[in-house]
Amino acid sequence: MRYNQMSREQLAAEFAAMQAAYAEFCAKGLKLDLSRGKPGAEQLDITIDMLDCLNAEDCKTGGGFDCRNYGLLDGTPEAKKLFSELLNIPEKNLFIGGNSSLKLMYDAVARCMLYGNCDGEPWIKQGGIKFICPAPGYDRHFAICESLGIEMISVNMNPDGPDMDAVEALVAADPAIKGIWCCPKYSNPDGYTYSDDTVRRLATMKTAAPDFRIFWDNAYVVHDLYDDVNDSLLDIFAETAAVGNEDRVFYFASTSKITFPGSGVAIFAMSDRNMKQVMPIIGIQTIGYDKLNMMRHVKYFGNAERILEHMKKQASILRPKFRVVLDTLSRDLDDAGFARWTDPKGGYFISLFTMPGTAKRAYALAKEAGVTLTTVGATYPYGKDPADSNIRIAPTFPSLADLTMAMDGLTICLRLAALEKLMAE
Amino acid sequence: MRYNQMSREQLAAEFAAMQAAYAEFCAKGLKLDLSRGKPGAEQLDITIDMLDCLNAEDCKTGGGFDCRNYGLLDGTPEAKKLFSELLNIPEKNLFIGGNSSLKLMYDAVARCMLYGNCDGEPWIKQGGIKFICPAPGYDRHFAICESLGIEMISVNMNPDGPDMDAVEALVAADPAIKGIWCCPKYSNPDGYTYSDDTVRRLATMKTAAPDFRIFWDNAYVVHDLYDDVNDSLLDIFAETAAVGNEDRVFYFASTSKITFPGSGVAIFAMSDRNMKQVMPIIGIQTIGYDKLNMMRHVKYFGNAERILEHMKKQASILRPKFRVVLDTLSRDLDDAGFARWTDPKGGYFISLFTMPGTAKRAYALAKEAGVTLTTVGATYPYGKDPADSNIRIAPTFPSLADLTMAMDGLTICLRLAALEKLMAE
Repeated sequence: MRYNQMSREQLAAEFAAMQAAYAEFCAKGLKLDLSRGKPGAEQLDITIDMLDCLNAEDCKTGGGFDCRNYGLLDGTPEAKKLFSELLNIPEKNLFIGGNSSLKLMYDAVARCMLYGNCDGEPWIKQGGIKFICPAPGYDRHFAICESLGIEMISVNMNPDGPDMDAVEALVAADPAIKGIWCCPKYSNPDGYTYSDDTVRRLATMKTAAPDFRIFWDNAYVVHDLYDDVNDSLLDIFAETAAVGNEDRVFYFASTSKITFPGSGVAIFAMSDRNMKQVMPIIGIQTIGYDKLNMMRHVKYFGNAERILEHMKKQASILRPKFRVVLDTLSRDLDDAGFARWTDPKGGYFISLFTMPGTAKRAYALAKEAGVTLTTVGATYPYGKDPADSNIRIAPTFPSLADLTMAMDGLTICLRLAALEKLMAE
Repeated sequence: MRYNQMSREQLAAEFAAMQAAYAEFCAKGLKLDLSRGKPGAEQLDITIDMLDCLNAEDCKTGGGFDCRNYGLLDGTPEAKKLFSELLNIPEKNLFIGGNSSLKLMYDAVARCMLYGNCDGEPWIKQGGIKFICPAPGYDRHFAICESLGIEMISVNMNPDGPDMDAVEALVAADPAIKGIWCCPKYSNPDGYTYSDDTVRRLATMKTAAPDFRIFWDNAYVVHDLYDDVNDSLLDIFAETAAVGNEDRVFYFASTSKITFPGSGVAIFAMSDRNMKQVMPIIGIQTIGYDKLNMMRHVKYFGNAERILEHMKKQASILRPKFRVVLDTLSRDLDDAGFARWTDPKGGYFISLFTMPGTAKRAYALAKEAGVTLTTVGATYPYGKDPADSNIRIAPTFPSLADLTMAMDGLTICLRLAALEKLMAE
């Protein structure tokens, strides 16, 4: 029965039942973590042979450059070829960086602050810079803005991408709006993929700021869960280039969730003009990134197809985990009718929208019971979910058994928090 | 015979001899590079077993943390222990970063620009920031300042370190002077090591800027050439801590010239207060650095003593190269008396001071003959050597045979340039 159709007595009975269930769950003394998008150990085991796959004879590029030494600021030709194949981006537009695409993104924003980009003055000189932040979104994108004093403007994230009516109106009117954070495929946390129409509108929209940039964090570009029903994402470079807007795109990807998080290879793709402005500054910042790790990835995979095959193995580990989350939510919350959640075809998260005004309370109840969730609010700019409703569920890190237990507890907490609210009204 | 004591006729005869020698050298059609401080392939071969030394069972820290996954922002405890031993700095004051200490330095300066440090407002807010640059010095230090619009003030580099009378007077008088670049042991390019007195004066000097920082790039901390006559450097942390100035030091080191340049481990050491201000910002910039590469270094070396043993092997490769440079310079230039050079006990460079006003010309002659030198002037702020005299010789990268040929040619070019000048006077 739906909670909002229950009588006082029915609510009281359900509340008592949930209190008892919660007490029982707490008594188990569990310590489970659903908070971060970390691969599980089983996923990392698949690529373990990468660790020692590199030998003395693998250190030279095809051109004879010794990758053990300094040089090749923009990455090895072999790594460029591999990721060009995988991402369908010309090698000349690829910069292969270190182990962290987040660092590449931070550095890209910080460079715009300190140096500007090829279409404008340093943002610190312009002052009062703003970014559009589709929400819910990735907390670490928002943290970069907050840290650098960039004002964040929330725009609703819909199943087909950011609310483009709102985005278009904002960027057309305000030259201080310099960027938008996009996680365009299997978005964090909803798992939504931008529709073709959304990508085209982003590519073609008029921006008051000539130096506006789309921060295209394609973190889950090959992170499909299924063989047949996966989402496809339009090529942002093709769409922008068609209208001469290719300089608008800063594109990021990484192997953090393909090989080893923290020991992967990160990629920054951009137009020729952006490349020409950015690379000399990167050449001041460093002599180069870890080319042996690039060669390690190249040796291990060989080509893009093998990466895609590898991602199918990853998917076979992740599917049951997503299934448990969805099944438990459905089993325990369908009838109560106060929550909705997403059913992504890839990526790392499921986004749950519980009864408005109860997410923080459910988080606290879960915490007390030993289940750590992503901090409620973290998926919104400034850490404030205006509806206090969104909870990001990260099912990948725990074992299937732990995940099952954690979900059993979580739905109790969600129901308890909802009941508390309804009974207080 | 000294060139400045030669008669017109003697000069003309020597000039003719050098012209003939130069023509002969050019005719060889060589292509040799003495420009960058890159290890030679033979040095890199020694650590080749590091490439595949890491196995599945090496991925966990002593505390059980899986280094294949995200986490441990400040580095693995094992890496901290190793470098704490090597550098004699407490583990709690070490941040183990990526593959590039230059990047850590750039980021440290950029953070001061954007956020300030624990003793002051963001430098971009303060405006008109200046750094003291002991010269000759490292071109990439100077490039960071130039790139970020930080005014550079040259101070003479002496055999015992920067001219401290000048440094003390400058920092005491001007609160806009926020930093000094130091390569304190086997300095780039001179190979000088700061005397105890210099270190103490840097540690204790009064600075008008409370947020002044010493950028202590200890790039050659264990890069001794000999067993017996090596330089020793006073502990900057001990000296600053003794007078409560420990927040003044940003200390950098790396294994770039211990293991593989570009695939090493970089270190940023700082006081507790600096750590407290810096780490939360690094936590916005990245999720973490490559912990598997840290574990690779830990597994390969095991302890600091083994690193020191390894450096003795490196030294045995480098000593003959330094010897060839010094012997050739002495053989060809002692009598002519117009040049002087350093005789470092470690590091990567020999600094040559040729007849003032002739370094650029000698560089051009060498270039034409197929010998690439470090761009003349690069060792000074803004790329301008006021005396046009300093040439940085980097003997490590070429083979001993190539180095010998290159040096034979270089001394011809130096003499020819000097003779041209004397004959034009």
